[in-house]
Amino acid sequence: MPPKKLLFTPGPLTTSASVKEAMLEDMGSRDHAFINSVKEIRSGLLELAYVSKSEGYECVIVQGSGTFGIESVISSAVGKNDVLGVLVNGAYGERIVKMAVIHGLKHRVLRFPEDEIVTLEATLKFLETNPDITHVACIHSETTTGLFNPIEEIGTICKQRRAVFIVDAMSSFGGVEMDMRKGNVDFLVSSSNKCIEGIPGFAFSLCRKSELEKAKGQARSLSLDLYDQWAGLEASGQFRFTPPTLSLMAFRQAMKELEREGGITAREKRYKENKRVLDAGMAGLGFKQYLRPDIQGHIITSFLYPKDTNFNFERFYNKLSSRGFVIYPGKLSKADAFRIGNIGQIFPEDVRSLIVAVQEVLEEDKIQIGN
Amino acid sequence: MPPKKLLFTPGPLTTSASVKEAMLEDMGSRDHAFINSVKEIRSGLLELAYVSKSEGYECVIVQGSGTFGIESVISSAVGKNDVLGVLVNGAYGERIVKMAVIHGLKHRVLRFPEDEIVTLEATLKFLETNPDITHVACIHSETTTGLFNPIEEIGTICKQRRAVFIVDAMSSFGGVEMDMRKGNVDFLVSSSNKCIEGIPGFAFSLCRKSELEKAKGQARSLSLDLYDQWAGLEASGQFRFTPPTLSLMAFRQAMKELEREGGITAREKRYKENKRVLDAGMAGLGFKQYLRPDIQGHIITSFLYPKDTNFNFERFYNKLSSRGFVIYPGKLSKADAFRIGNIGQIFPEDVRSLIVAVQEVLEEDKIQIGN
Repeated sequence: MPPKKLLFTPGPLTTSASVKEAMLEDMGSRDHAFINSVKEIRSGLLELAYVSKSEGYECVIVQGSGTFGIESVISSAVGKNDVLGVLVNGAYGERIVKMAVIHGLKHRVLRFPEDEIVTLEATLKFLETNPDITHVACIHSETTTGLFNPIEEIGTICKQRRAVFIVDAMSSFGGVEMDMRKGNVDFLVSSSNKCIEGIPGFAFSLCRKSELEKAKGQARSLSLDLYDQWAGLEASGQFRFTPPTLSLMAFRQAMKELEREGGITAREKRYKENKRVLDAGMAGLGFKQYLRPDIQGHIITSFLYPKDTNFNFERFYNKLSSRGFVIYPGKLSKADAFRIGNIGQIFPEDVRSLIVAVQEVLEEDKIQIGN
Repeated sequence: MPPKKLLFTPGPLTTSASVKEAMLEDMGSRDHAFINSVKEIRSGLLELAYVSKSEGYECVIVQGSGTFGIESVISSAVGKNDVLGVLVNGAYGERIVKMAVIHGLKHRVLRFPEDEIVTLEATLKFLETNPDITHVACIHSETTTGLFNPIEEIGTICKQRRAVFIVDAMSSFGGVEMDMRKGNVDFLVSSSNKCIEGIPGFAFSLCRKSELEKAKGQARSLSLDLYDQWAGLEASGQFRFTPPTLSLMAFRQAMKELEREGGITAREKRYKENKRVLDAGMAGLGFKQYLRPDIQGHIITSFLYPKDTNFNFERFYNKLSSRGFVIYPGKLSKADAFRIGNIGQIFPEDVRSLIVAVQEVLEEDKIQIGN
């Protein structure tokens, strides 16, 4: 048997044994036990964002990957007379632009370099010079690099300009404290296999109900109709189309374990400690990070390739993988880097073991680091 | 502990313990072990339809439910100058019409009563009077009622008329022998939680490559772009967006178990035996079926509600469920019925146990059957 692998990725992540074991019983998608679990999950997710149904927020679960969740919001919430402003500093922001193009949405794009965060000055100017913008979309944790955009401050600007604010918090929700109301976020999207530490299968959108209701009849597809998906869940507690039953059962267990860990506060602390151990260990080995520290988030980090020609990413990856550590390729447009994630069921001692393995591989392959 | 439930539904189904146990190890979505599994699954699915890559067929896996798979085909394969003809005799046919409307596809609809199959005469006339039709879509096993449409014969007509033939074989593929080439099927869609007996999480389309290639640039959404999804899988073996890793691992195990059972031939035989035991048992209790026997498939059966006012479906369902048997509500537009499926890891002895439980509930609630 090969060793059980730890995933140092942006997801799918390492999950607890008990989360996976929650999938060992078949579930009818229209059975009461399942319907009740979905209800629990939907209200629990709102709580994690410090909002609730009675305060005018709703949770909609959409089958598929996180991108399906983002597309369901973008292609449902932005009406044909609306204009979407997209704040871009990485591949995930560009993906939203791509959706806008495919769906023929009126849109404007404000681009920043990949190694810079979205700035408030530029955003304000962008909204002032494009007063027709009705909706603003931004990524919180740009997984391309690992930076965090200043969501709360951007939310304040959106509020001043009366723009609907859509946040892709895919890789950060559950691993970073986020108050939807305080951040003036109207739509917040994440997925099952990120910081809540479930397995892949669905995305979820936390929505301000008054904005969700405006999406009625606006969707550009059947499967990704955010309003209809919500209306279906509200009417019967059931999904319009077959849900990933066992992913949802795993997720319910993951939510219980998040609570037991001490909620998002405790999880954020653990992830930050993972990040601290990673930073120190990799710096000790001589690795340089792509981003400057003050804009780097604690979800995932991009490390520049060593310049030594003995370094070959494919070999480096395989040697770490055979030792039980799965890292992640890079996605930068202008520099060669690999990525290491701090999220999932991994703990500071696991990060220390990873550092030891990296050191072994460097020595084995005689890789000198000097960037 | 409540008893382990058997699902007599059209899916999600009862699956084997070993299929679910295949989900107990975390998998990186870009890891080689996972990529190899996806490759195996894709070629194995083509084999089950008696075609292969070298013969010009391709398998595309799409995240989400079966409907996502159908929508990815309908909204990618039908170009803006094409005309889709939809053959409808149930809710799943109507769903395809709904997709055509949402995506603004040119389309014509030929409707049959819910309790009749698609006839060849009417189909031929429909295509003759609408010579602009370029694509024909039809459901194989209409889960609304449980009837089987004569796919192979319709395929022959499509071939004569040079129309691209799209078959929704959602609830039947894997449980009914189907030769894609012989049936002249260009796109065949099913999902992970049907007769292959995996768990929910994805749909798959088996596609004639020459038609799939025409879909390039035609998709109406990013997530459901059939061509791009295929091109991504071909280029790197990886999914464009996070796949349901563990559903795929479960599915690979399910495919092995299908082979061990004796392939589709053996599975079809078991399902037919389930159906025979169900028919005999339910008839013995006095239940009447909605469809006449000659058009009824062996996947799922609609039984009319007893007329006795002591019968209450909700109570009937709950009492069976608490005994460990999950049945399925009806979906007929004009009659009250419930449905019982014969597919999944259920065997004739399980059907016999279900019949005993139904009899107990009838007696307990003093329900007289005389339709």
